[in-house]
Amino acid sequence: MIRLDGKTVAEHVKQRLLPRIEHFKSKIGRSPHLVVVLVGDDPASQVYVKNKQLACEKLGMKSTLLRKPANLSQADLEKLISELNTDDAVDGVLVQMPLPSHLKSDKIFELLDPSKDADGFSYFSTGLLWAGKATVKPCTPAGVIEILKYYKIPLKGKNVVVVGRSHIVGKPVAALLLDENATVTVVHSHTVNMQEYTQNADVVVVAAGKPHLLGKNDFKKDAVVIDVGIHGTGKGNLHGDVRFEELEGWVSAATPVPGGVGPMTIAMLLQNTVSLAEKRKF
Amino acid sequence: MIRLDGKTVAEHVKQRLLPRIEHFKSKIGRSPHLVVVLVGDDPASQVYVKNKQLACEKLGMKSTLLRKPANLSQADLEKLISELNTDDAVDGVLVQMPLPSHLKSDKIFELLDPSKDADGFSYFSTGLLWAGKATVKPCTPAGVIEILKYYKIPLKGKNVVVVGRSHIVGKPVAALLLDENATVTVVHSHTVNMQEYTQNADVVVVAAGKPHLLGKNDFKKDAVVIDVGIHGTGKGNLHGDVRFEELEGWVSAATPVPGGVGPMTIAMLLQNTVSLAEKRKF
Repeated sequence: MIRLDGKTVAEHVKQRLLPRIEHFKSKIGRSPHLVVVLVGDDPASQVYVKNKQLACEKLGMKSTLLRKPANLSQADLEKLISELNTDDAVDGVLVQMPLPSHLKSDKIFELLDPSKDADGFSYFSTGLLWAGKATVKPCTPAGVIEILKYYKIPLKGKNVVVVGRSHIVGKPVAALLLDENATVTVVHSHTVNMQEYTQNADVVVVAAGKPHLLGKNDFKKDAVVIDVGIHGTGKGNLHGDVRFEELEGWVSAATPVPGGVGPMTIAMLLQNTVSLAEKRKF
Repeated sequence: MIRLDGKTVAEHVKQRLLPRIEHFKSKIGRSPHLVVVLVGDDPASQVYVKNKQLACEKLGMKSTLLRKPANLSQADLEKLISELNTDDAVDGVLVQMPLPSHLKSDKIFELLDPSKDADGFSYFSTGLLWAGKATVKPCTPAGVIEILKYYKIPLKGKNVVVVGRSHIVGKPVAALLLDENATVTVVHSHTVNMQEYTQNADVVVVAAGKPHLLGKNDFKKDAVVIDVGIHGTGKGNLHGDVRFEELEGWVSAATPVPGGVGPMTIAMLLQNTVSLAEKRKF
């Protein structure tokens, strides 16, 4: 079984960005600039945001963290988005989710200028994605495709099953897999006999959000398994939606958790920011 | 075999609109108003546009046809869209496709205000569709769902296969089927062994655009078949992507061509226009 190593692929993506960042700098006179908006003080969000900033800095990109109090008003959040939309010194904007419950994330997806949508979650960006015309693709789904391509796993005409239909992963990864000419099935919590689908698949992308949901018996011999799940055990360990330890000697390749899809998300965010920066007119 | 009669369902949809149209009229003092833009003089487009107008008038809605010459410039088309976007007397706008080849339809999907997008094809509308938040849904896919619901064909948890992945039908009908909690597979020209998918499906939505592509052997006993294809024979006859005449005694229900999905498209356009009119702030 090949262990699909997200760290290696993420590093490859980042290295590929370096000359683009240098070119942008020499042309425009500054680094591509990502602004991250963090509302409130959710501890997990703080870690995510910090990792995103560190990754930017490591590549010589600029990142700015805008911290706002948990009681920020909807009007002030919208005003902030409008200001960032028109700020020439900002190339990409990411509003860290989840927002405090009194704030409407819908409104962000509506207001954020698609030309600055580093996460690719605005409605307009989603429309472009399904039309096959996206400049930026949602980070985690794009990372899944990047891993599959890095390891030269064929997708064209293949039976690919996506487990889960979230707006963050399941649906957009289905769009990207169709773009790769895969035959795509989306199964989910209402699916009857999920195993019948996964057992026939050449590639299974698991984004169910349920720890240890699938194991060896759910996959056919020599299948490729991509595990998007990430769950804490409370003891500092992480595991995915798949019982990885069962797969050795059965499937042909799989992503571990941690170290699989996880590291890709930030790499794709950096790539999106650079792509948006390059597309801007100065 | 139940013959799924699109004329009956379309009539049902239209009747359901009548009180909404009356209510809008009495509240706002005018009828919901659809503007159809027709560029050039493609004969098929002229027929489609005329049918849309007649259907509007029959229900007491207002329709305006804006005919533009085939050599209309991109700038003038964009100016026209901007004017319609801000015209308070216009509730829905439809730009008849295909446009002459020198014009960019992409730009329409970008510029047309989603609050007036009667066809539901703008990028923003597509994004809302995939987020499950659409006010208007693309007409033909919405018509497919309407037929399935009218005939109380269960979708939740069912194995539904969509043949074709166009932006007009395949992809949006997949989104709507996921919203109905179906398990959805999209097969297409690159799919290997398409029959293995269609033969296992409870419901098959065929939108391949290839005359007579599928027949009895492609469906399991008692499947439900929805044929979105429509092809002229040159002798005035129409037929679909499915060999309908083979299905009797095998599948449980199917749409004929003509008289199946076809009549639904205009009914859903009228519904979209009324929905957009109702959502406007006067």
